Amino acid sequence: MATNKKLNFPKRKKKKSRQQNKLGKAPGTISYMGDKERGDSVIYSTTYNADGYETKEFTDLEAFFAEKRTDQTSWINVVGISDEPFIEKLGKHFNLNPLVLEDIVNTEQRPKVDEYDDYIFGIFRMLYISEEEEIVGEHIALVLLENTVLVFQEVKADVFNGLRDRITGKLGRIRTRGADYLFFALLDAIVDNYFLAIENLNNRIEILEEEVYSNPEPVVAKNIQLLKKEVLKIRRWIFPVKELISRLIDSENPLITKDTKLFLRDVLDHAIEINESLQIYREMSMSLMEMYMSNMSNKMNEVMKVLTIMASIFIPLTFIAGIYGMNFDHMPELHYRYGYYVVWIVMILLFIGMMFYFKKKKWL
Amino acid sequence: MATNKKLNFPKRKKKKSRQQNKLGKAPGTISYMGDKERGDSVIYSTTYNADGYETKEFTDLEAFFAEKRTDQTSWINVVGISDEPFIEKLGKHFNLNPLVLEDIVNTEQRPKVDEYDDYIFGIFRMLYISEEEEIVGEHIALVLLENTVLVFQEVKADVFNGLRDRITGKLGRIRTRGADYLFFALLDAIVDNYFLAIENLNNRIEILEEEVYSNPEPVVAKNIQLLKKEVLKIRRWIFPVKELISRLIDSENPLITKDTKLFLRDVLDHAIEINESLQIYREMSMSLMEMYMSNMSNKMNEVMKVLTIMASIFIPLTFIAGIYGMNFDHMPELHYRYGYYVVWIVMILLFIGMMFYFKKKKWL
Amino acid sequence: MATNKKLNFPKRKKKKSRQQNKLGKAPGTISYMGDKERGDSVIYSTTYNADGYETKEFTDLEAFFAEKRTDQTSWINVVGISDEPFIEKLGKHFNLNPLVLEDIVNTEQRPKVDEYDDYIFGIFRMLYISEEEEIVGEHIALVLLENTVLVFQEVKADVFNGLRDRITGKLGRIRTRGADYLFFALLDAIVDNYFLAIENLNNRIEILEEEVYSNPEPVVAKNIQLLKKEVLKIRRWIFPVKELISRLIDSENPLITKDTKLFLRDVLDHAIEINESLQIYREMSMSLMEMYMSNMSNKMNEVMKVLTIMASIFIPLTFIAGIYGMNFDHMPELHYRYGYYVVWIVMILLFIGMMFYFKKKKWL
Amino acid sequence: MATNKKLNFPKRKKKKSRQQNKLGKAPGTISYMGDKERGDSVIYSTTYNADGYETKEFTDLEAFFAEKRTDQTSWINVVGISDEPFIEKLGKHFNLNPLVLEDIVNTEQRPKVDEYDDYIFGIFRMLYISEEEEIVGEHIALVLLENTVLVFQEVKADVFNGLRDRITGKLGRIRTRGADYLFFALLDAIVDNYFLAIENLNNRIEILEEEVYSNPEPVVAKNIQLLKKEVLKIRRWIFPVKELISRLIDSENPLITKDTKLFLRDVLDHAIEINESLQIYREMSMSLMEMYMSNMSNKMNEVMKVLTIMASIFIPLTFIAGIYGMNFDHMPELHYRYGYYVVWIVMILLFIGMMFYFKKKKWL
Amino acid sequence: MATNKKLNFPKRKKKKSRQQNKLGKAPGTISYMGDKERGDSVIYSTTYNADGYETKEFTDLEAFFAEKRTDQTSWINVVGISDEPFIEKLGKHFNLNPLVLEDIVNTEQRPKVDEYDDYIFGIFRMLYISEEEEIVGEHIALVLLENTVLVFQEVKADVFNGLRDRITGKLGRIRTRGADYLFFALLDAIVDNYFLAIENLNNRIEILEEEVYSNPEPVVAKNIQLLKKEVLKIRRWIFPVKELISRLIDSENPLITKDTKLFLRDVLDHAIEINESLQIYREMSMSLMEMYMSNMSNKMNEVMKVLTIMASIFIPLTFIAGIYGMNFDHMPELHYRYGYYVVWIVMILLFIGMMFYFKKKKWL
Repeated sequence: MATNKKLNFPKRKKKKSRQQNKLGKAPGTISYMGDKERGDSVIYSTTYNADGYETKEFTDLEAFFAEKRTDQTSWINVVGISDEPFIEKLGKHFNLNPLVLEDIVNTEQRPKVDEYDDYIFGIFRMLYISEEEEIVGEHIALVLLENTVLVFQEVKADVFNGLRDRITGKLGRIRTRGADYLFFALLDAIVDNYFLAIENLNNRIEILEEEVYSNPEPVVAKNIQLLKKEVLKIRRWIFPVKELISRLIDSENPLITKDTKLFLRDVLDHAIEINESLQIYREMSMSLMEMYMSNMSNKMNEVMKVLTIMASIFIPLTFIAGIYGMNFDHMPELHYRYGYYVVWIVMILLFIGMMFYFKKKKWL
Repeated sequence: MATNKKLNFPKRKKKKSRQQNKLGKAPGTISYMGDKERGDSVIYSTTYNADGYETKEFTDLEAFFAEKRTDQTSWINVVGISDEPFIEKLGKHFNLNPLVLEDIVNTEQRPKVDEYDDYIFGIFRMLYISEEEEIVGEHIALVLLENTVLVFQEVKADVFNGLRDRITGKLGRIRTRGADYLFFALLDAIVDNYFLAIENLNNRIEILEEEVYSNPEPVVAKNIQLLKKEVLKIRRWIFPVKELISRLIDSENPLITKDTKLFLRDVLDHAIEINESLQIYREMSMSLMEMYMSNMSNKMNEVMKVLTIMASIFIPLTFIAGIYGMNFDHMPELHYRYGYYVVWIVMILLFIGMMFYFKKKKWL
Repeated sequence: MATNKKLNFPKRKKKKSRQQNKLGKAPGTISYMGDKERGDSVIYSTTYNADGYETKEFTDLEAFFAEKRTDQTSWINVVGISDEPFIEKLGKHFNLNPLVLEDIVNTEQRPKVDEYDDYIFGIFRMLYISEEEEIVGEHIALVLLENTVLVFQEVKADVFNGLRDRITGKLGRIRTRGADYLFFALLDAIVDNYFLAIENLNNRIEILEEEVYSNPEPVVAKNIQLLKKEVLKIRRWIFPVKELISRLIDSENPLITKDTKLFLRDVLDHAIEINESLQIYREMSMSLMEMYMSNMSNKMNEVMKVLTIMASIFIPLTFIAGIYGMNFDHMPELHYRYGYYVVWIVMILLFIGMMFYFKKKKWL
Repeated sequence: MATNKKLNFPKRKKKKSRQQNKLGKAPGTISYMGDKERGDSVIYSTTYNADGYETKEFTDLEAFFAEKRTDQTSWINVVGISDEPFIEKLGKHFNLNPLVLEDIVNTEQRPKVDEYDDYIFGIFRMLYISEEEEIVGEHIALVLLENTVLVFQEVKADVFNGLRDRITGKLGRIRTRGADYLFFALLDAIVDNYFLAIENLNNRIEILEEEVYSNPEPVVAKNIQLLKKEVLKIRRWIFPVKELISRLIDSENPLITKDTKLFLRDVLDHAIEINESLQIYREMSMSLMEMYMSNMSNKMNEVMKVLTIMASIFIPLTFIAGIYGMNFDHMPELHYRYGYYVVWIVMILLFIGMMFYFKKKKWL
Repeated sequence: MATNKKLNFPKRKKKKSRQQNKLGKAPGTISYMGDKERGDSVIYSTTYNADGYETKEFTDLEAFFAEKRTDQTSWINVVGISDEPFIEKLGKHFNLNPLVLEDIVNTEQRPKVDEYDDYIFGIFRMLYISEEEEIVGEHIALVLLENTVLVFQEVKADVFNGLRDRITGKLGRIRTRGADYLFFALLDAIVDNYFLAIENLNNRIEILEEEVYSNPEPVVAKNIQLLKKEVLKIRRWIFPVKELISRLIDSENPLITKDTKLFLRDVLDHAIEINESLQIYREMSMSLMEMYMSNMSNKMNEVMKVLTIMASIFIPLTFIAGIYGMNFDHMPELHYRYGYYVVWIVMILLFIGMMFYFKKKKWL
């Protein structure tokens, strides 16, 4: 078959950004989008049932595949998703669709839940408060298979320690239930931590509120705008979650038992509550800006009043002084015995009159 | 089974808040979230039928369980929900799901209604006006079982006295009807009290409105913002109620008879009306802020007019006085017989001209 | 059965308002909520069929009940709803649910339509323009029974005279049709009068618009806010009507014939149109406020320009005069022959230069 | 049957408007609402099939009814709808419901489509650009019967000439298709002309935009408000069309063939596009006002800067001159040889310093 | 059949625009709406299967029709759509509906997808960044037939080179799949390029944000408004895509295999994400304007403070100097030995007092 190689048309794009690296690639291409240093992926595997539990750590995939996991529930925690071939091999082992793998390493992916025949796949944002008291959102991917939950995260640090303690300490129901309960418990931990983010926003709004009243500097306006952007950003991460969980509850996938759905309903409740709070914070940040503007305008009023009072009092007085500073030959008042004192008295009366006028206008 | 104990990942959270206490705990863990002092729970039990009624008070659960309640309707009023083991035992006695108990003691829980096979469970906010004329929202949980309604509240003070009087005084239908009618009557009392909150908001809006017109001080702007926040807060408590009651009406749960649904439709009507009012108050509080800004801007205009009038009149006059205060050797006007008087006449004419100009501009 | 009388909990409410009078009462309690003087209720009964009509007036219920109404259509017009026992007896005669009677005398009730097995019940607001050219909304209740329509209104004054003329004058179809057509005709008269309210709002918007442009006084801003509140209030009365009529059309109640539904579709059309107009008026009243603010800001600009022009011209000139008012021993210019005139020329040139500058800036 | 004539209640309305003329009249009363001079109605009838076409003009209804229209498609164009008896007779001839005739002559009727058993009836607004470059909306009514389309318009001037040319010139499919295609073609012509209105709005927005930047006079703000009102008005006419056409497409009325629905889908596309444009123009007109306010505020800033610069420079200098204008006996500086020059130098330095300061602040 | 030629009514339109050229034409008339120079259309045909591929270029339609395309997938890329007869002939060859051809050459057509029996037809906007760093949206039409995808574009320059490389380089699945996968891949390339437009908007917002804080010049406000308009424009192109793809996924058209729908779900995900981003950018551009206004108002405050401080300090001092510039015969202070120095001291104290006052007010 003949091939004439003038196929490509003039290109349309100029700047190179991370987003562009994906342009033109086939869908299902696994390419890491995050900004963490590329390092090796590590697998932390926790298997448990009502009788006991076992945790292991693998850096070698072959060793991991060699392991046998029988009638227990397995929590396969993959830390580090920048090693694309690693992820690809793992995905193949668990029979995951390439599109799923693409989403797992796409750290910009918005929250989603996709159901496949043999597994349910979800992307979420794990929110936590950083050392600098800032809200950080980290990409996390969950895959629920039969007896197994895969968790993919970028760095070894997460919000699941309470859950780990419940497994090791045999607290609550977790050890007696299957993988779908584990999946729920992970989701629950993620959503519960959203409350911390919400609390952090609340604190910042309260601080800004106080500043707006006490000290409406331009920097406060800037901070209000930053807050608004933050609320928008977090809303983007959190908003879809409500819908996704609700879809899980309505799903007829046999992987999720009716019993676990009861628990998911609880998570849904929390997600709805968080969305409502975010909505309120959005309106409150708008009110903050409004309040800032009103305080600015108030300060301006105050400045103008000082100016007006000073000018209105002293300009007429200066005019009177100017009159008697004129050098006409014939100015009888200048020669009066008490002319100077009369002028002073007139000035003082004028001053007092002005003061009364401004008092009446409540400008003083 | 081997256990290597390096399971927990680095933790992500720093500050400790009440919300955090729940983090990591298993779902269904009963942990009180309120800020009332922890005290003993007391049970006030009222049983009645068409023939009579009986009220008892228990602090000991065993004594309470020992009581027999036959073909009567029971209203079990639990005051104080901070004693978690107490609530847990009580819950077990009535076969309530741990998730329900968790919600009962979670004073931050947003309004919800959940239907279970044997009972219907609802969380609401009971609104009342405090001594300081402020709107207080208290967490209340209702559980409708067959023949029995459980009511959980934080403190002994509520909005149900009218209902109690109807039971003791045999007023209205209440004594001749079952538990579902009692459940409705409780809901009705809660929603009816929302009207008081609404009225309180209305009064505050009217007061603020008057202040905005008569005296647009910064404190008024602050109060408008506080009002807006209050409306947002109350809306959050009240808004879901409409949906919840509507769901109860559509429910096919045999616990609620068709007859009682007719009454629930009435409560639904009220809930819709209250939501509409809240919506209107929200718009009115926005208009208030707008009005405040317009009045501020108006005051500024007034201040500026005074300044402009004073400056525009006296600066030119002072200039004229300044002219004849110069010390040139050759200034013929200075030696005119009536020079001084002519200057006065010119000044007065200028003054009058200015006044006319400002009158024409409607600045005076 | 024993009764220990410490049943009532501490009360939560303090202020006494009309709303509160209803608190705690059993649902279905008939208590008048309006502010009209309590007077006797009068019944105006109009019975008609294709052959003729008859109108009677009753103040005594027994006499009214004694009347026989056979195969004719009856329009029972009850004027005065503050006499609760009267309403109750009447309700019992027509077999109306106590909840319906409660709504009939509740003059604060929002528009609603409820279908019962034997009758359809609707609450509406009858709008008309008062002598003071204000929009008044009066509570009206309609009940459609077989062959009979009950109308409850607070005072003897309404919007149905055109309809009365059609019955007495045998105009249109009304005499040849049943009670459902009468019900429709009443609704039609109510909704048609909404157009007058709308027209009144339109006139007021046009007047305010003119005032905003010609004379943006604070009182105009206040009037705009009053208009906004009025639109909100009327919207609350009118908005639900669309939905209610649409529900009547979809209803499968045999009381309303298919033929009459065709006419109801016409009323629905009008209701939709009125809602659209209200929406537009709402946006226009917002634009009015915006325009007011922009005109205020414009006036401020004008004031500032006058100040700036006056100050910028005369302050430098006064400075020059000040220079030559100094008393230094050695100021050669003072002794020049034409020094004084040169200063005048300089001043005039400065003045002209300033004028040109401000002309160029379009401030003059 | 006895008749006591005190039936009518006190009347509630005062002013007389066109709207009021309809009040109290029976539904289905045909009363012209427009403001065109009442003149005779003329019927322009065009009948055509694939073989040929014929156009006739009738002013006499009897002559029109005498005409025979067999297997052809008829376009009956009625110009002038103020002659109510004429319309009524015509309506009776075609078996139209009185409610339809009422809508046909009601020039205030909002767009609607009603399906009856034998015909489909639609009211639309025909938009065109007047000589004064203004958008005019004219009431038009279409009735699709079997083989016939009735068109009612107020004046002899419309947007259908292109369509007439296609019929006479045998262009396109029109001659080979039935009445439903003609109905579609009329609708298509109406909707296509909306694009001209849209274009006109766009031009006006662009002109205003330029004026806002170059010359933010109050008249520009007024024009922006007028534009906003115009957009609101046009939106009211155009907005329902989308829904109406979509309903026609979904209708199962045999009068509209499946083939024609394909074309209607195209009209629907246009209607959606026009609505989107209107939405965008609305947002743009809001931005215009915002921009106007920002430019006003900018101009104010400029004015204030000029004032501040002039005052800040010359007030301190005048003060210095004032000092040495004092008449104390002992002021050593006055007697210094170069005192006067030193003062000048100080003043000039001060002036230069101020200029630097303002330059640094970017006020110059 | 007789024909009287006075058929056309007075015309209603005046200005001639491109939009008007279409007015009055029959639907399905193919008329190019773009502004590219009219040139010849060229067809680039790429046929491929798993074994190989072949690309050819045709300017002559007959030669193109003569070609045989058997069991391979064909990508028929038509560059240049201004040659209407060319498009019409091509359309006829592929049996496309005239309405489809009309949309193909209508470069103003909003995005749409229409399903026909034998093909699926879609219009989209291809977005790319021009050399001037501006976002350009180009009209593109896709038609999916069995084994063939037709692509119509205005100029030879597009966003499909990555896709071409995958075909020639045998990368990914493309060569092993059918025409529906090609259709998806084209859509995917279009939507992926939307991310670049989004990124471009983001960059511009960030630049404007910085400028708003550092240098709030009027030109910044203008740029913010331009950005807002750009966002509105792009939103109009992108917004419908979500809905269209979702409709493709739900479609039961056999042309799209279930397998390909899985990939389309991925594109849908991206489309949703882009819409969300646009929504956020819209809110951010509104915040920008708000911030600009707040900074303007802040600058004004600063200007006013300078004026007030200067005037408040020097006007009283000048007044004092004016006092002792009066020429009264009897002014004892003038003759005091240290009078002059005392006045200086008073003035300096006043100056210091003022400075303290302004410091306390935080105006300095």
